[in-house]
Amino acid sequence: MTHKKTVRTEAQKKALTNRLKRLEGQIRGLEKMIEDDVYCNDILQQSMSAASAIDGFNQELLGYHLKGCVTESIREGDEEVVEELLKTIRKLMK
Amino acid sequence: MTHKKTVRTEAQKKALTNRLKRLEGQIRGLEKMIEDDVYCNDILQQSMSAASAIDGFNQELLGYHLKGCVTESIREGDEEVVEELLKTIRKLMK
Amino acid sequence: MTHKKTVRTEAQKKALTNRLKRLEGQIRGLEKMIEDDVYCNDILQQSMSAASAIDGFNQELLGYHLKGCVTESIREGDEEVVEELLKTIRKLMK
Amino acid sequence: MTHKKTVRTEAQKKALTNRLKRLEGQIRGLEKMIEDDVYCNDILQQSMSAASAIDGFNQELLGYHLKGCVTESIREGDEEVVEELLKTIRKLMK
Repeated sequence: MTHKKTVRTEAQKKALTNRLKRLEGQIRGLEKMIEDDVYCNDILQQSMSAASAIDGFNQELLGYHLKGCVTESIREGDEEVVEELLKTIRKLMK
Repeated sequence: MTHKKTVRTEAQKKALTNRLKRLEGQIRGLEKMIEDDVYCNDILQQSMSAASAIDGFNQELLGYHLKGCVTESIREGDEEVVEELLKTIRKLMK
Repeated sequence: MTHKKTVRTEAQKKALTNRLKRLEGQIRGLEKMIEDDVYCNDILQQSMSAASAIDGFNQELLGYHLKGCVTESIREGDEEVVEELLKTIRKLMK
Repeated sequence: MTHKKTVRTEAQKKALTNRLKRLEGQIRGLEKMIEDDVYCNDILQQSMSAASAIDGFNQELLGYHLKGCVTESIREGDEEVVEELLKTIRKLMK
C-alpha cells in the first residue's frame, strides 16, 4: 500500500460508504441464513447478490479513479499510473 | 426464496460463518479507507480481496450443496435440483 | 485427459458444433480487424462477444454434462464425479 | 462501430494475430473433440483454456489501447475516451 491520498467530494464519499453499509447488511443477512439452516441454493442467491454489490462498488470507485487520479496523472506526464491501472483491470477481469 | 432447510454440521456452519465474519471486517476496513481518503488503487486492492472472499464462500457452500442436497436429490430421482443448480452456476460464471 | 467417452445425441452435437463454427467466424473477423487497423475499442467489443460465445458453449456443454454423465454417475454411486465437477465449476467462476 | 483507426506497430499486430491464430486452432480442436465423443469434462478443460486465451488477447489489446489511444486522447483534452473506456472495463469485468 502506498501512502498516497485521494481527495473525494462529500457526495462521492457518501455514495461509496452507502454501498459498503448496504453490503455489510447483506453479509450479516448471510450469517443469519447460515444460523437458520436456510437451503444452500437460497443462500447462494443472496451471496451472489453481495458479490454483485462489491462489483458495483469497484466500478464506481474505478470510475472516480479514471476520471480523477488517472486523467490528472496522464496530463502531468506520469506513465506509471497507466501500468498500475492495467494491473488492477487485469485483476478485476478475473 | 423457498422454505427448504439444509442441515449442516457444526463444522460446516463454523467454517462458513468465519468466512463471513472476516468478510465483514474487510468491508469495515473499506469504510475506514474511504473515510481516510486513501488512494483509489489501494482501496481497489482491498475490495478485490473482499470479492475473492465472497467467491471463496460461494465455492465452499456450493461444495456442500453438491455433495449434500444435490447428490441426495438426484438419488431420490429429483431432476429439478439439476435445473436449479445449472441456473445458479450460470450466475456464478458471470 | 481421460479416455472416457460421452455419447451425445445428433442434435446436441450439432448445437455445440454450430456454436464453435460461429465462434471460428468471429475469431477470423478479429484477425481481419487487426489487419485493417480498426480502432481498439471496436475490436474489444467483438472480442468480448467472442468471449460470451465461449461462455455460452461452456454453459450448454455443462448442462448436458450435469443432466447426463453427472446424474448417471451419482445414481451409480460414483462420488468422484462430484469432486471433478466442483473443480471445473471453480475454474469456470474465474 | 466507429470508423476510427488505430495504427499499431508490426510487432503489436503480429503478437495479436498470433494469439488469434492459436485460438482458432483451439476452436478447431474443440470441434474435433465433439465429433470424437470426448468426455464432457475433458472438453470443458479445453474450452476454458480457449476462454483464457481470449482474456489474454483482451488484456494485451487493452494495454495497447491504454498506453496509446487513451493516453493521447486525455492529453488532447478528450474526456469522452474515458467514459468509453469505463464502459468497456465494466463489460470486461463480467
